[in-house]
Amino acid sequence: MKKIINAVELVEDQMIAGMCKAFPQYVTKLDCGNVVVRTDKKEGKVALISGGGSGHEPAHGGFVGTGMLDAAVAGAVFTSPTPDQIYEGIKAIATDKGVLMVVKNYTGDVMNFEMAADMARDMDGIKVAQVVTNDDVAVQDSLYTVGRRGVAGTVFVHKIAGALAETGAELEEVQAVAQKVCDNVRTMGMAIKPCIVPAAGTPGFELADDEMEIGIGIHGEPGIYREALKPADEIVDVLMEKILADIDFAGSEVAVMINGCGATPLMELFIVNNRVADILADKGIKVYKTFVGEYMTSIEMEGFSISLLKLDDQMKALLDAPADTPAFKA
Amino acid sequence: MKKIINAVELVEDQMIAGMCKAFPQYVTKLDCGNVVVRTDKKEGKVALISGGGSGHEPAHGGFVGTGMLDAAVAGAVFTSPTPDQIYEGIKAIATDKGVLMVVKNYTGDVMNFEMAADMARDMDGIKVAQVVTNDDVAVQDSLYTVGRRGVAGTVFVHKIAGALAETGAELEEVQAVAQKVCDNVRTMGMAIKPCIVPAAGTPGFELADDEMEIGIGIHGEPGIYREALKPADEIVDVLMEKILADIDFAGSEVAVMINGCGATPLMELFIVNNRVADILADKGIKVYKTFVGEYMTSIEMEGFSISLLKLDDQMKALLDAPADTPAFKA
Repeated sequence: MKKIINAVELVEDQMIAGMCKAFPQYVTKLDCGNVVVRTDKKEGKVALISGGGSGHEPAHGGFVGTGMLDAAVAGAVFTSPTPDQIYEGIKAIATDKGVLMVVKNYTGDVMNFEMAADMARDMDGIKVAQVVTNDDVAVQDSLYTVGRRGVAGTVFVHKIAGALAETGAELEEVQAVAQKVCDNVRTMGMAIKPCIVPAAGTPGFELADDEMEIGIGIHGEPGIYREALKPADEIVDVLMEKILADIDFAGSEVAVMINGCGATPLMELFIVNNRVADILADKGIKVYKTFVGEYMTSIEMEGFSISLLKLDDQMKALLDAPADTPAFKA
Repeated sequence: MKKIINAVELVEDQMIAGMCKAFPQYVTKLDCGNVVVRTDKKEGKVALISGGGSGHEPAHGGFVGTGMLDAAVAGAVFTSPTPDQIYEGIKAIATDKGVLMVVKNYTGDVMNFEMAADMARDMDGIKVAQVVTNDDVAVQDSLYTVGRRGVAGTVFVHKIAGALAETGAELEEVQAVAQKVCDNVRTMGMAIKPCIVPAAGTPGFELADDEMEIGIGIHGEPGIYREALKPADEIVDVLMEKILADIDFAGSEVAVMINGCGATPLMELFIVNNRVADILADKGIKVYKTFVGEYMTSIEMEGFSISLLKLDDQMKALLDAPADTPAFKA
């Protein structure tokens, strides 16, 4: 294992510390583990909390700030945060307007966020609602999930629900728009190189020199199939066919996210977008805005995912609304 | 070679096409090769042009937009753009206020930018000035350079000179502040994994499983020495000692850039910043603003560089001024 770290047992703590030292204007760490909250807590708005295992940086701490999240909870690498951690995060950001949890659909995450919500409701009388993201069209159930996995499309939920929360909207409205994003975003990914969880020391899976995995999850969970590496355009065609078959995008406007998994050069992500844009143009699907970069990574996995979000006027306006966070500015 | 591309001879064209399709609101490609210019040309300001070989994405096309560059010229991977390409870029953006070229110190780049400037002056009467960035403290001369190499610190020149140009300042003033940034920024990098130039098909250098290269350049040029991989903090200590010894940072305020080389997970960059911030705090050097991410990459090289920019009030204000580009927003 070749990594730029100090010790496997210090990875999460030193990463979060380094993030908070880089962006003190945005994020502050609580004293109870790796929970970061907005440095300037904002009252009078629904507070958003998200999180999950570490290893997906900039998710989720990188999206804490004006117009997106109020707190991000980071478990150990690829491990759900504990209910206690999440509960502390909820308490730290709660306002009279309530708290919305944005949870990626992984069995452990969903369970622990729900336990934390129950604690906050029962012990502190905090209003807590949630949405569970499940944008990955690759597989119906996975190694860690009943139902579809929540992956990069989650970032659109952060952005759009966060923007509505910032206006002072009520919890039910913020939850409803978050759910609308979930209902209209679809993602699929692939990888050509695995990642290594520091505490494990060996890759989570192996790919031969000429192989790729289609439909992979953000922890390297198996996808649909493994086959010989193909030209980028052919890979994109496969992913786009599955995404476009899942809901009816005909005649709509979409936001596109070409997400790098951690070690994918931007050069390759642009080559991917070149094909994605052509396919959408051919089908008469209008691109409203495109995002290319690292949003939801898998440590140093090499690969990418494509997310398409079918927009309406409300989502367009909220996507464009100001956001000021370490990793997402609008 | 395992890459998500279509064909080695299409990499640069499809990358630039994919970038322009992702960000049509920011960048438009000229018809004369891989030159991108601001989609909405702005008159009445000094126009900034930069560029170099491809493979450093988001540099330089990702920095074209309000408050930074007006044009970026992309050669083949790790190959200087031609004088003709640069000349076309200069002509496309030139205003009555003139053009400032921001050139990284590599022999081929400097020569070709200067030839292009001469063509623009002689044939079109365009006022052209230049600054040459040379922020890398690792080596005095390199494989491709007489004098120090221009590396990630160049992005601070784009930002600060671009912000001053946006105010309508004169060419001499914009050149002067660009030179001030050059005089006050220092960078040093390292790598644990090489990159592969697509047309070559094999790594530019080899590192054993336990080795790292200290002082490496952004094309994988040799650095100062190669040795066994150490803990992140010890690596940072070595780089910071050399940077801090080069100019007197005592009592000053600095901007910090922790730049990933292309395949380095953000997790590791934050761990690096954790140490950098501690060293600066210990020495009483105040951090004004920190940037962590990919700014000047080397395709899929794994490693990082640290840049420190010693600020004054003018540079602070210009660093904070609005910027709206694909890869840098402020």
